[in-house]
Amino acid sequence: MRNPRFVDDRITLVHGAGGSAMRALIEQVFAFQATGAPGFGAVPGGIGLPEMDDGAAIPIGDRWLVITTDAHVVQPIVFPGGDIGRLAVSGTVNDLAMMGATEPLALTCAAILEDGFPRADLERIWASIRIACDEAGTTIVTGDTKVMRHGELDRIAITTTGVALTSRVVPDRGLSPGDIVIVTGTMGDHGLAILATRAELALDTALVSDVAPINGLVRGALAAGGSGIVAMKDPTRGGLASALHDMADKSSVGIVLHERAVPIRDEARAVSELLGIDPLVVANEGKAVIGVRREVADAVLAALRAHPLGRAAAIVGECIAERPGHVIVETGFGRRLLVEAEGELQPRIC
Amino acid sequence: MRNPRFVDDRITLVHGAGGSAMRALIEQVFAFQATGAPGFGAVPGGIGLPEMDDGAAIPIGDRWLVITTDAHVVQPIVFPGGDIGRLAVSGTVNDLAMMGATEPLALTCAAILEDGFPRADLERIWASIRIACDEAGTTIVTGDTKVMRHGELDRIAITTTGVALTSRVVPDRGLSPGDIVIVTGTMGDHGLAILATRAELALDTALVSDVAPINGLVRGALAAGGSGIVAMKDPTRGGLASALHDMADKSSVGIVLHERAVPIRDEARAVSELLGIDPLVVANEGKAVIGVRREVADAVLAALRAHPLGRAAAIVGECIAERPGHVIVETGFGRRLLVEAEGELQPRIC
Repeated sequence: MRNPRFVDDRITLVHGAGGSAMRALIEQVFAFQATGAPGFGAVPGGIGLPEMDDGAAIPIGDRWLVITTDAHVVQPIVFPGGDIGRLAVSGTVNDLAMMGATEPLALTCAAILEDGFPRADLERIWASIRIACDEAGTTIVTGDTKVMRHGELDRIAITTTGVALTSRVVPDRGLSPGDIVIVTGTMGDHGLAILATRAELALDTALVSDVAPINGLVRGALAAGGSGIVAMKDPTRGGLASALHDMADKSSVGIVLHERAVPIRDEARAVSELLGIDPLVVANEGKAVIGVRREVADAVLAALRAHPLGRAAAIVGECIAERPGHVIVETGFGRRLLVEAEGELQPRIC
Repeated sequence: MRNPRFVDDRITLVHGAGGSAMRALIEQVFAFQATGAPGFGAVPGGIGLPEMDDGAAIPIGDRWLVITTDAHVVQPIVFPGGDIGRLAVSGTVNDLAMMGATEPLALTCAAILEDGFPRADLERIWASIRIACDEAGTTIVTGDTKVMRHGELDRIAITTTGVALTSRVVPDRGLSPGDIVIVTGTMGDHGLAILATRAELALDTALVSDVAPINGLVRGALAAGGSGIVAMKDPTRGGLASALHDMADKSSVGIVLHERAVPIRDEARAVSELLGIDPLVVANEGKAVIGVRREVADAVLAALRAHPLGRAAAIVGECIAERPGHVIVETGFGRRLLVEAEGELQPRIC
């Protein structure tokens, strides 16, 4: 059955927004298994394309090689709190970490540049890449550079890929009823900081992106929670709303989100209200959603809060057997279903 | 000392052309080690960014994890003999093979699309990717999709990354005086086929790109030549001229190229003469330059010719101690230095 989102047979901005339209595109085109070579992209005994996780996991001896890739087209390329280089490294390191692989072996970096791109800007971005790599304890071991004609690309696009070895893979689908959902910090900072720079009112805000590699933070959580950590996902495109929907759907559980427990900065809330955009549907670039067994929740929370990037970590919800695939917001006054941000077109947020 | 190519402090098309300007960009920006964290990108005991090889090699136990990445922006996206999907898979598989890693574990694929890109075109490209993966014995295990606004990107860019394990790494710098240089087939097919489609005279030619994964071909050569195979490089951007210059420079040898021994299709020669472009300076996407010890040259040549993709393989040159870093063309009437194609602007050839 053809998804009605493809009614006009063209890829549109909504397919890059991180929500259900993007998942439909991946399911219908990239991971489509009904015709052609069966099992394309599958990893026997591991995690491959059909699982649509944060990356893939390939068994190698008694360990797993985890690999993940991301294209980065953020606009503007320098924004409050970061730039496209820091974003690229953080996005890739964090996707590895979300699979349980917190010690990246190496990253690759392929840059596409527009003819006329200032060398000074490239050097600044590269310096930022190096700093972010140092923070994450990794490096760029190989790369590629292509140049397109003026007008064929808006400035620069950077694709980074990361590899890591791990003895345990944490999938995004391991939730069971009774499990606890933790976020590692405030929600909405990256997406709202980017959108604030674009608003025509030129918002005067102190809000900065949270973009950072959080593999160190996640390492601490994994040490504290052990096998009690059952699912992880980073709430990037589509924000917390998309991450929770994806986890609920794949795990076949309902998730109850306690709205008041979700940490949100005052600056983020202010920008959110001015722009009319829910902080729960915009991207974060230095945060994780972690699903844990109830008995390790306190230990994991304590470990997160002991890390500089996890001070605002909080328990925000729990999993239920009812309403599988749905996210129910407990507002304090009642319950409503959390909707994904399909209508919100936020291209080039990352 | 600042390279005069950067005189206007902007990245230009020549920096993406695969020649010395691109190498200067990499050396001066990406692999620059004089300031900042020393050794950035280095792989202790392996091959990393400073080596500027076809990819990186990371020691893992008694093997090497080889990783390589390439952005693909070819225009037109469908061309005689292939398309951007087949190109992306072949480019990555072949870069792995050039490091000696002929059994790819997996590939990743990150696509950036322009708003409005036809779904049917995406499906056609994806089908092509699947076919090329099948030919190479690999698959795409994870990916990413971003969408840019109409006018921000000319249609589509695809970045692929590949990983493979190998027990022996073949660098691009292993040549010594006396070694023999082999090419695995005809030169110039891909670049000239692409340029023919762009020519305003709308050339009526049967020339098609050679784009193909050649890991199987290289595997046969490695089996025949063993440790006598000392250097490999695929003559992509910048063609055979850039590949030989790079190998000569890194190995500190001179290379004598016997012009008449270089296999060139009649169709390629015809297009070359019409466009006024030397077939030795344009990209190939299904060929390798292999440096071998003299005693295994015949065995390697026989193994190559026994493979469907190596029928036209030929010995084209040898290494000398004189003129290190230079490529001398023996024309049959005399000798001249082979120059790289810095003046030729061939953007988006791959």
